[in-house]
Amino acid sequence: MTIPESVPLLLTVEDYARRAKELLPSGMWGTLYGDDGAPDFRAETGNVEAFRAIRFRPRVLVDVQHRNLATEALGAPISLPVMIAPSGHQQRVHRDGETATARAAAASGTIMVLSTASSFSIEEVALAASGTLWFQLYWMRDRRVTQWLVRRAEDSGYKAIVLTVDMPGIRSRERDVRHEWNLADESKLGRTLEPDRLLRNFSGLEQAIPGAEAPTQAAFNEAWDDSVTWKDLDWLRSFTTLPIVLKGVQTAEDAELAVQYGAEGLIVSNHGGFALDDATPTIEVLPEVAEVVNGRLEVFLDGGVRTGSDVLKALALGARAVLLGRAPHWALAVNGEQGLRDLLEILRIELNVAMAFAGTADVNRVNAAIIRRG
Amino acid sequence: MTIPESVPLLLTVEDYARRAKELLPSGMWGTLYGDDGAPDFRAETGNVEAFRAIRFRPRVLVDVQHRNLATEALGAPISLPVMIAPSGHQQRVHRDGETATARAAAASGTIMVLSTASSFSIEEVALAASGTLWFQLYWMRDRRVTQWLVRRAEDSGYKAIVLTVDMPGIRSRERDVRHEWNLADESKLGRTLEPDRLLRNFSGLEQAIPGAEAPTQAAFNEAWDDSVTWKDLDWLRSFTTLPIVLKGVQTAEDAELAVQYGAEGLIVSNHGGFALDDATPTIEVLPEVAEVVNGRLEVFLDGGVRTGSDVLKALALGARAVLLGRAPHWALAVNGEQGLRDLLEILRIELNVAMAFAGTADVNRVNAAIIRRG
Amino acid sequence: MTIPESVPLLLTVEDYARRAKELLPSGMWGTLYGDDGAPDFRAETGNVEAFRAIRFRPRVLVDVQHRNLATEALGAPISLPVMIAPSGHQQRVHRDGETATARAAAASGTIMVLSTASSFSIEEVALAASGTLWFQLYWMRDRRVTQWLVRRAEDSGYKAIVLTVDMPGIRSRERDVRHEWNLADESKLGRTLEPDRLLRNFSGLEQAIPGAEAPTQAAFNEAWDDSVTWKDLDWLRSFTTLPIVLKGVQTAEDAELAVQYGAEGLIVSNHGGFALDDATPTIEVLPEVAEVVNGRLEVFLDGGVRTGSDVLKALALGARAVLLGRAPHWALAVNGEQGLRDLLEILRIELNVAMAFAGTADVNRVNAAIIRRG
Amino acid sequence: MTIPESVPLLLTVEDYARRAKELLPSGMWGTLYGDDGAPDFRAETGNVEAFRAIRFRPRVLVDVQHRNLATEALGAPISLPVMIAPSGHQQRVHRDGETATARAAAASGTIMVLSTASSFSIEEVALAASGTLWFQLYWMRDRRVTQWLVRRAEDSGYKAIVLTVDMPGIRSRERDVRHEWNLADESKLGRTLEPDRLLRNFSGLEQAIPGAEAPTQAAFNEAWDDSVTWKDLDWLRSFTTLPIVLKGVQTAEDAELAVQYGAEGLIVSNHGGFALDDATPTIEVLPEVAEVVNGRLEVFLDGGVRTGSDVLKALALGARAVLLGRAPHWALAVNGEQGLRDLLEILRIELNVAMAFAGTADVNRVNAAIIRRG
Repeated sequence: MTIPESVPLLLTVEDYARRAKELLPSGMWGTLYGDDGAPDFRAETGNVEAFRAIRFRPRVLVDVQHRNLATEALGAPISLPVMIAPSGHQQRVHRDGETATARAAAASGTIMVLSTASSFSIEEVALAASGTLWFQLYWMRDRRVTQWLVRRAEDSGYKAIVLTVDMPGIRSRERDVRHEWNLADESKLGRTLEPDRLLRNFSGLEQAIPGAEAPTQAAFNEAWDDSVTWKDLDWLRSFTTLPIVLKGVQTAEDAELAVQYGAEGLIVSNHGGFALDDATPTIEVLPEVAEVVNGRLEVFLDGGVRTGSDVLKALALGARAVLLGRAPHWALAVNGEQGLRDLLEILRIELNVAMAFAGTADVNRVNAAIIRRG
Repeated sequence: MTIPESVPLLLTVEDYARRAKELLPSGMWGTLYGDDGAPDFRAETGNVEAFRAIRFRPRVLVDVQHRNLATEALGAPISLPVMIAPSGHQQRVHRDGETATARAAAASGTIMVLSTASSFSIEEVALAASGTLWFQLYWMRDRRVTQWLVRRAEDSGYKAIVLTVDMPGIRSRERDVRHEWNLADESKLGRTLEPDRLLRNFSGLEQAIPGAEAPTQAAFNEAWDDSVTWKDLDWLRSFTTLPIVLKGVQTAEDAELAVQYGAEGLIVSNHGGFALDDATPTIEVLPEVAEVVNGRLEVFLDGGVRTGSDVLKALALGARAVLLGRAPHWALAVNGEQGLRDLLEILRIELNVAMAFAGTADVNRVNAAIIRRG
Repeated sequence: MTIPESVPLLLTVEDYARRAKELLPSGMWGTLYGDDGAPDFRAETGNVEAFRAIRFRPRVLVDVQHRNLATEALGAPISLPVMIAPSGHQQRVHRDGETATARAAAASGTIMVLSTASSFSIEEVALAASGTLWFQLYWMRDRRVTQWLVRRAEDSGYKAIVLTVDMPGIRSRERDVRHEWNLADESKLGRTLEPDRLLRNFSGLEQAIPGAEAPTQAAFNEAWDDSVTWKDLDWLRSFTTLPIVLKGVQTAEDAELAVQYGAEGLIVSNHGGFALDDATPTIEVLPEVAEVVNGRLEVFLDGGVRTGSDVLKALALGARAVLLGRAPHWALAVNGEQGLRDLLEILRIELNVAMAFAGTADVNRVNAAIIRRG
Repeated sequence: MTIPESVPLLLTVEDYARRAKELLPSGMWGTLYGDDGAPDFRAETGNVEAFRAIRFRPRVLVDVQHRNLATEALGAPISLPVMIAPSGHQQRVHRDGETATARAAAASGTIMVLSTASSFSIEEVALAASGTLWFQLYWMRDRRVTQWLVRRAEDSGYKAIVLTVDMPGIRSRERDVRHEWNLADESKLGRTLEPDRLLRNFSGLEQAIPGAEAPTQAAFNEAWDDSVTWKDLDWLRSFTTLPIVLKGVQTAEDAELAVQYGAEGLIVSNHGGFALDDATPTIEVLPEVAEVVNGRLEVFLDGGVRTGSDVLKALALGARAVLLGRAPHWALAVNGEQGLRDLLEILRIELNVAMAFAGTADVNRVNAAIIRRG
């Protein structure tokens, strides 16, 4: 994709959103990537607005000459506390799809979480880049398939399993129908998606597991197991040594259970507004989760992060790092791998500036004293 | 009514509102069915906005494979916790009026509450459909008429008397005058209302009760008894064994009195904005009512319900089921009985999805822990 | 003034505002009578919005058959708890000015408070109508003039002195200049004001009090005494037996002082937005004032009252009655005496309806239990 | 600059903002002087809105005949509690730049704080006017330069050093790039800036301090020392006897440190929105700062002050005086020295009126009782 000379300036994450909205088919934007206050995305709108409402208490005359943005996630170094959230079908916004994302994440020194629903396979993405990768897992009804996915991730060097727990095999179809956007109908996708790249990770399933049936895109959600409970995590443990991160925790109660059942990490998330309307904004959930966890596992957050100061707020309220869900799609749509590298650089600079202004020099030592109470 | 091909999609309750607004005479919309923020409907606008402000605390890794939406209302099974509130003159929006509503409610496995001011009679509606019916009663000054109505409902198999307590024989005429909509002037009604169907339940009154006078539409409210108090409920009990549901309770104090005076149920309602401007939104009243009632009678709610997640919020805050007031008119106007069946199906699906996302599998076990405090 | 056939409906107080805005010169509207959110009237906008934010807790199954709207103000009966606040120069909006207002107030069974700055004199207004009148007093630097005004009011049968305490001889000229509206320049007034009717109450001053100087309109405020304090009320008492009502009390502290210094009444008022920008809305001030006063004097309120439900809110929060400041000008401009009678009738009906809905049958027994806390 | 006859009225500070926006190049407005809610100035927007949300509790029957607006700042008399905040490059908006500002401040009886980045030198400004001047200091990495600046200020009769502590040598470039406004590119400045007046205070640096290097505009921020901490204040004390005022304190914790480390004053400031997005509005920070300081040093505030009532609010909440940052640029752009004199006169009149209305006669005795709690 060649960006014409006349593009608006791309100085912020929201600039990428605006540009991507112009570039993408409107149905795709409205169905998948929008964040502009449509009622059917109001949980994500809530996420963004909740960040805006939080005020800083900046400290002064602190030595901020040497600022450190680097930290670790499950032991792996990241150069800034911003990671790539899992999201599927990235080839729809750029030909190189998840391989571009993985290369950008690696180049920027951060971790990409690959979606089960990726358009490049676990193995293809592992080969594409040298950075740390985590694998996001939808727990399939056919447990053999679940196990097959996890083992492939482990074999390909992925460093954690991110189990999505906020999408129990059901979702609203309103957006799809409203925008007349049929995810399964390739002829409407219009862009660069290659025919065999929908649910790429399930290619070869029939050969690998006799009797197993690869899910269709149209019925993908229905293949997920909505009867999984905390006790089933033991089964996952039984065949993988990878750390487990639970994505979608939204209450202190479930954070405590995550600790009790031995998860190594959790992501406070409401699935970017794709799950329950009127879910509590993630940045408002974070404090109760961080308090109950009290360091017993690693806490991450996604939903609504648009600026470096948002990242700093999340760190102050207890997150080790944040993950970006929509923004990587925006960046890929605008300029592929380079777009995402540029977008991550914007956040790095904004976070760096925000830290200096807030009087906090190390992402590992940010605390809630820089946030206004009440 | 034939819906042309080009109609907007009807995917949500609010889609039905928008479509109905296009189809109905503007005066009728503004006088009776609007909910689009006109100042003279601001109590209903408040009801809707109050639902929007409530946030969920979704639980995860709960087994939600088998979700149950069925419950009971005064012992009668309903397939989803959404019932049809009483509202009059339904033939004005569709030729089949309340008979269509009754058939749709029965087909959808829920209860319809028939209004005293219906355009089909108690008996006609009972014959039209096989579902459970309740009868809404305006207490008439002429107690013989009141008794006559209740006995006919009982004789026709209605299962409860819903006594409206928030409309003491007076109401604002501003909307009628503003919209130049004269309820009593049939020539202006314009649509399908048949001449003899205004206050159909009072046909034959003069023959049935010597000396009694059938109210005119213009003076209908004035025929109600605005001197009725709690003690008068005994008189109602004296000639009917049907359970009594009080519609319009809006305080904990009156909920306690409802228990004391032996009501079997109550509906938290502010008459959908037709009563007092700036009444407290019903979903905000519900918690204090449910707390004081503490299971001693059945609590219902109407006002502002537009989505399945609204239904779930009401259940979480103490309602056994909700009732729809305006929405059935919208659905009838758009597509008659089928419209209402479709609308109820939308709510069923939305509630089903919301329950899965919230991690709650049975409408009978929803509790306030899934709602954010403060 | 003949109202053409095509006027919008006049069903609410705000309808009168809209109509008056069309009829009056825009500079006059903006300088004196506007309430449409101009920044320079933001205290009045705040008054209106604060009323909107208050929610009712309506009671049901109360006998509201016989509703009483009549009460007393300083011993004088009023047929509804809505009185006419003092405001000057009413001939600018209608030829009959304050005489029309007085006749409308009398016909409607309520009290008019005549402004010191009226365009008809104390005596002329007393002759024009038979209702109860109170006299609003600006305390003049020349105490002989102050005494002369009070004595004339007493002699003419006025029943109370309403001493304005929130206008200490200074005010912002921004509105005047902004709207190029020169109060003193009769040639710009444009409407029906007769040349000798500006500050009509000061006609004959030079003859009555040798050496005293009648104030000019341009310097009227400067003639007020901004050194008056609580102790000076004794001087007022020394030559009049009329009860004293302090207009402009805005804190519990000053309400307590009003009691201590023997005032018979007070009006919670911020001068309708003509005094201090960002004054606390009067309906928000009322509870602290009513609590401290605890019945030791009579509490009234003006500012922001637009509907019958506003009146009911003020009564519930401790006011004996409310006063209307701008609304009488709107009504006079639209239709003279009849306009004001109609406007008062609108409020009477609205209050009557609101009382029935709220389950409160007597204006003398309304209490804060019908208002939602917090 | 000649103001044409048709200009809008200049009656308020915001009138000056509107007029200046018309007169200035849009890029300059957007980069430096805007306050119209652009997202990248949202901390300043927050400052303004926070003032609006504060409500008065006006007292009545207080003798306000003789009102005193005069006070002292670090012992120097000021005729009103409104001073000129430091801001650089004032020649960009008017040929006479800081000399005009200094003359206006002196004529109005208040203090100007000269910026390190001024377009007229420390000495030139001292010669231009006879009023009290303070000198704002950016702490330069090359401490010889820092010392040189302070000594020159002291030698020229400046009465205090205002050390900026909220700008640690880094800032967002988004505004500059967005508005294509290159501060260092004189050819784009377009107006009256003379080539040698960027960073005028550094002229002659190479001659004065062998080996020192004058900063360029483009890299000016980078010349600041971002490693300065509280202990370094001792070094500043070692060569100047001028009182030290810390500009940019935003927490009670840092206010306490300011006292501990012997500062004579502090300015609650978030750099007018040029520092951290979503900083807490200064008027919301002021109470916690004033409480902890408890008179041990002098507290000032800038950010969001637009009206005389804003000034009164700041005094009530603990400020001795406020400083204006953007407003002087607006006034200079509109009408040079006279513009700023007029603007200060507007605030003087507005404050005077607000004091009378609030019932408080002396700026030195204003207290929080006139502000509504909660």
